[in-house]
Amino acid sequence: MKRVVLASANPDKLSELRYFLRNLEIEVISVSDLLPDWSIEETGATLEENAYLKARDVAEKTQLPAIADDTGLFVDVLGGAPGIYASRFAGPDCSYENNINKLLQTMLCEENRRASFRTSAVLVSTGMEFSVTGEVAGMIIEKPDGKEGFGYDPVFLPDDLDRTFARCSPEEKHRISHRARAMLKLREMLVASGIPG
Amino acid sequence: MKRVVLASANPDKLSELRYFLRNLEIEVISVSDLLPDWSIEETGATLEENAYLKARDVAEKTQLPAIADDTGLFVDVLGGAPGIYASRFAGPDCSYENNINKLLQTMLCEENRRASFRTSAVLVSTGMEFSVTGEVAGMIIEKPDGKEGFGYDPVFLPDDLDRTFARCSPEEKHRISHRARAMLKLREMLVASGIPG
Repeated sequence: MKRVVLASANPDKLSELRYFLRNLEIEVISVSDLLPDWSIEETGATLEENAYLKARDVAEKTQLPAIADDTGLFVDVLGGAPGIYASRFAGPDCSYENNINKLLQTMLCEENRRASFRTSAVLVSTGMEFSVTGEVAGMIIEKPDGKEGFGYDPVFLPDDLDRTFARCSPEEKHRISHRARAMLKLREMLVASGIPG
Repeated sequence: MKRVVLASANPDKLSELRYFLRNLEIEVISVSDLLPDWSIEETGATLEENAYLKARDVAEKTQLPAIADDTGLFVDVLGGAPGIYASRFAGPDCSYENNINKLLQTMLCEENRRASFRTSAVLVSTGMEFSVTGEVAGMIIEKPDGKEGFGYDPVFLPDDLDRTFARCSPEEKHRISHRARAMLKLREMLVASGIPG
């Protein structure tokens, strides 16, 4: 049973990763178990760079394979904003609601509502690394709808669905979201890497 | 049948890659077929960086998945030299023989002959990339032995073999070399990536 470290202290991300990597000969642990005070500034210019920054740092410090991810929301009419800054769009310590309000304000008179969620997930190990991307295209609707999920879920209507991500159960989101798509590719590549075992 | 571009104009590398990626639903073509004048300066600090430089440039220019590799010879007692500069150890336009002579001169009175060959191979595609490494450890012997292969093969004695790489047939080298190890991992990861088809 090989150990793989998630370069995030977020317990929801840990549960999610364990779900997507279930039934493989690996044990997914959190960086918090090995490096309780670990943190890193996400100074990359892209999702992928931020994910690599985190995974490389943790792989080097723990000498174990490390996984990290980063997610952004890219709105066409805003030239890709908020992009990698999605979680801090309305300021450094803002709430999900603050971010949504800022986004809806900014797009108030816009007819073009096209946007996409993208997740970049990476694995860094000795002599091997990879990055994968999961994407879901859709629209930013004009009023929040739904209570599930987090972040921009209440205002994002995926093309392949008749309701927002905030009206999806966690199980449903695990089948269709950008994060799910990235995690399924990550699983395939991880199996091919020969790390499990 | 998907097309994948090798970011190298070297026909031997093209044959080798086609051999390792045989029986997959992909056609491996050379960058020379699409961009006849393509070249790039290998300014990276590591094998992996150099391979990524080449593959990213070709993937961007051709809009096709691109593969690149870089190989180095790392001699323990020389602190890892010639490393990524192995092919230009004795100067910018030197021959294999010049390089070997310089290496043997430099190591003349050294008892520690440990060294390793390493190949980094990468694939860059839309929303996905990976790098793998193949390594063979061995010794630098005192006099060249054998006519097969190229580069430092006549003075490199792999740990798992009773003769130098320059005394191996191409088929044998395709089973045991650092390049072969990298290419087999590349194949596994490529299959997992979902690109073939």
